[in-house]
Amino acid sequence: MSLFKRSVTEGLGTFWLVLGGCGSAVLAAAFPAVGIGLLGVSLAFGLTVLTMAFAIGHISGCHLNPAVSVGLVVGGRFPARELPAYVVAQVIGGTFAAALLYFIASDKPGFELASGLASNGYGLHSPGGYSMAAGFVSELVMTAMFVVIILGATDRRAPPGLAPIAIGLALTLIHLISIPVTNTSVNPARSTGPALIVGGWAIQQLWMFWLAPLLGAVIGGFGYRWLGKEGSS
Amino acid sequence: MSLFKRSVTEGLGTFWLVLGGCGSAVLAAAFPAVGIGLLGVSLAFGLTVLTMAFAIGHISGCHLNPAVSVGLVVGGRFPARELPAYVVAQVIGGTFAAALLYFIASDKPGFELASGLASNGYGLHSPGGYSMAAGFVSELVMTAMFVVIILGATDRRAPPGLAPIAIGLALTLIHLISIPVTNTSVNPARSTGPALIVGGWAIQQLWMFWLAPLLGAVIGGFGYRWLGKEGSS
Amino acid sequence: MSLFKRSVTEGLGTFWLVLGGCGSAVLAAAFPAVGIGLLGVSLAFGLTVLTMAFAIGHISGCHLNPAVSVGLVVGGRFPARELPAYVVAQVIGGTFAAALLYFIASDKPGFELASGLASNGYGLHSPGGYSMAAGFVSELVMTAMFVVIILGATDRRAPPGLAPIAIGLALTLIHLISIPVTNTSVNPARSTGPALIVGGWAIQQLWMFWLAPLLGAVIGGFGYRWLGKEGSS
Amino acid sequence: MSLFKRSVTEGLGTFWLVLGGCGSAVLAAAFPAVGIGLLGVSLAFGLTVLTMAFAIGHISGCHLNPAVSVGLVVGGRFPARELPAYVVAQVIGGTFAAALLYFIASDKPGFELASGLASNGYGLHSPGGYSMAAGFVSELVMTAMFVVIILGATDRRAPPGLAPIAIGLALTLIHLISIPVTNTSVNPARSTGPALIVGGWAIQQLWMFWLAPLLGAVIGGFGYRWLGKEGSS
Repeated sequence: MSLFKRSVTEGLGTFWLVLGGCGSAVLAAAFPAVGIGLLGVSLAFGLTVLTMAFAIGHISGCHLNPAVSVGLVVGGRFPARELPAYVVAQVIGGTFAAALLYFIASDKPGFELASGLASNGYGLHSPGGYSMAAGFVSELVMTAMFVVIILGATDRRAPPGLAPIAIGLALTLIHLISIPVTNTSVNPARSTGPALIVGGWAIQQLWMFWLAPLLGAVIGGFGYRWLGKEGSS
Repeated sequence: MSLFKRSVTEGLGTFWLVLGGCGSAVLAAAFPAVGIGLLGVSLAFGLTVLTMAFAIGHISGCHLNPAVSVGLVVGGRFPARELPAYVVAQVIGGTFAAALLYFIASDKPGFELASGLASNGYGLHSPGGYSMAAGFVSELVMTAMFVVIILGATDRRAPPGLAPIAIGLALTLIHLISIPVTNTSVNPARSTGPALIVGGWAIQQLWMFWLAPLLGAVIGGFGYRWLGKEGSS
Repeated sequence: MSLFKRSVTEGLGTFWLVLGGCGSAVLAAAFPAVGIGLLGVSLAFGLTVLTMAFAIGHISGCHLNPAVSVGLVVGGRFPARELPAYVVAQVIGGTFAAALLYFIASDKPGFELASGLASNGYGLHSPGGYSMAAGFVSELVMTAMFVVIILGATDRRAPPGLAPIAIGLALTLIHLISIPVTNTSVNPARSTGPALIVGGWAIQQLWMFWLAPLLGAVIGGFGYRWLGKEGSS
Repeated sequence: MSLFKRSVTEGLGTFWLVLGGCGSAVLAAAFPAVGIGLLGVSLAFGLTVLTMAFAIGHISGCHLNPAVSVGLVVGGRFPARELPAYVVAQVIGGTFAAALLYFIASDKPGFELASGLASNGYGLHSPGGYSMAAGFVSELVMTAMFVVIILGATDRRAPPGLAPIAIGLALTLIHLISIPVTNTSVNPARSTGPALIVGGWAIQQLWMFWLAPLLGAVIGGFGYRWLGKEGSS
């Protein structure tokens, strides 16, 4: 498959991740009386990855996330020279999704863009009022563990074919833990799309949702390399 | 297997999809204090497909949805000449389910048919008050992505045997996002069954739940053909 | 494996089904503020079967349900001469679970046995106030579909090894739909255990939760035999 | 793989179990209006095991739990001489997680350590006010069944590769049933980590969350050995 076609596929997958994850948060989480809540949003984020990993894993590898692509480079599973194309495509896909979500959500009377399109934030913009320090640590640790799970579940010694389930549900789990802290990113493309539409504070805080996930991904990548390496230890 | 038997199987499966999905919505979603909410309904719709795909996938392919059958035709996986039999069977199965659900639900004092059997709608009949334009775009995009996932997860390069999980949970995800917009169709047979029982507005708005999903299915079918095609690109 | 050991295994599995399903309903469904609701109970019932089917499927087949055993006899997958031992073991296992659950639940001040141990009922004892007719039809249809799914998912043409997921989640789905109608049985052993502890109305209404599921199982068994049979049709 | 590296892996996995399970409970369970509730916490605990079993099962076996390690020794699947290293690593990993969780959670104004970091307890410290006797029986039975499921799902006759799903969702199920009774342990390392941070009552009651799970694990281990053993019997 050409890098172009694989990058388009990554863009489509990241479009789905942001549309499904942020879309469920914006449209359905707080629906009166029968809303899906943070549990439903967590499930939605995970299912975007689970479904796409089955659908396009054989085309592009289904990273859908610059931090994952970086973690795979560090873990020795993805060539660094293809990183730029993947990351650009992921950001473009996430931005398209945020724009489409804005089109649908703003259709409803009373929609307020200021409260964000499920944008990530800390401090005043943390859903639960957590500080920058708590948010940074949370994003870093969650992304590191996510990358460990991705490298482990796609290891040739792991059960074949089931990595999409492990990885998708890992993202669900990460959201179950940390939505209150930062609205959960662990994915710079997922943060960038909504931030570009919302602007203002979401752009100002965006640096953290690139830095912490990428740092976590590097740690997770080196960590699994050491843990998973066979031999004398 | 004969086309007749496969069509009967499609009818049975679509019966299950509408009975399970709309049934959970009508009977259990808003049950006092412990209702399953939109999250439970989303799970129920997905599980009807997951369970049936394991149970009858080897008999009829388990489309359960005219848009899926059309998407499979466009994607080159299903012969166009069998489309009419499948679609008719799907609509009949969905209508039987809506009638049975009406029998059970109307047994309870206070049941109001006017509020529908989880019928799909837009504008005044959108659960969240979304317009026709928002509903049309939502149905079109959701169905296109659903068809991409179906074609991808059943690709011979995808992990074997697990497509029922990917496809069922994709339907769950689609509902987690879009129930507030249109009550989520992405399936003309699922819309037609309840509409025939409810009548009135549900019939008047039914055109959109044929047009948007079918259009989305065509787009998704062509899209995956291009993405998934090996070669020079 | 000897019939004795397989029957003990069925008893243990049915113990788990009733302890997990009814236990989650009694202990956790209506827990203040954070209760698991009918969605959690539905998931719990399904997971008892999913977990046991992986754990003991290779020992006893993991029926855990007299209606399923009958459906498998009708479907030509289980010898009728072993039916009595399996059914007796299932009922004993379910009764042990109900007794243990009573021990734990009654420990808490304010526990009222009269409201049942998640016993099945209709009319005044239907959670949502549904009549005997609605309850009978619901139990019959749900069990028939359950047996179709079981026979289909364990068909040699279905994906190997995944039937526990399909069957467990089918039970979850059935509960998502029909708890409000009858508290959902589709399993005479699951109904009998709690009824023996609760007595009174639960015993008086117990006939229906043998008759409707068994009848449904016979219909489902014959139905799948016809649908799934290869040949000229 | 060296015992050292495998033990570090167990520590990392148990870190994830406690961070994910207790973290979701502390940070997200009772979040206003959209909290994940006990259902979300149950799912989170199970998904920590599901994801880690796919990621590190091929490295360390992914016990993440002293009771599981003991049950595997009794069941003849793990050498007793490696037990101390595994248990020490599990306790250290769980304690690191509790400390990290304390760092994040205490960042928020109004956090009270006295109410615990999802510590396990009975009597006054049982979430639902259940007594020591009810708690002991619950922990013992739940752990015994957990070990039966683990031994069964990893039996060479069970479907290959799917044990992570069975075992992870078994832990979800166990939490769906028994969080109200003891906050659910079935895992001495999961109890010890938070107790060391919380101190006081959590330390005083800690004995039970070693004794009952270990006793249950021994019973479950012997039980499955007998049930699963082929031969005359």
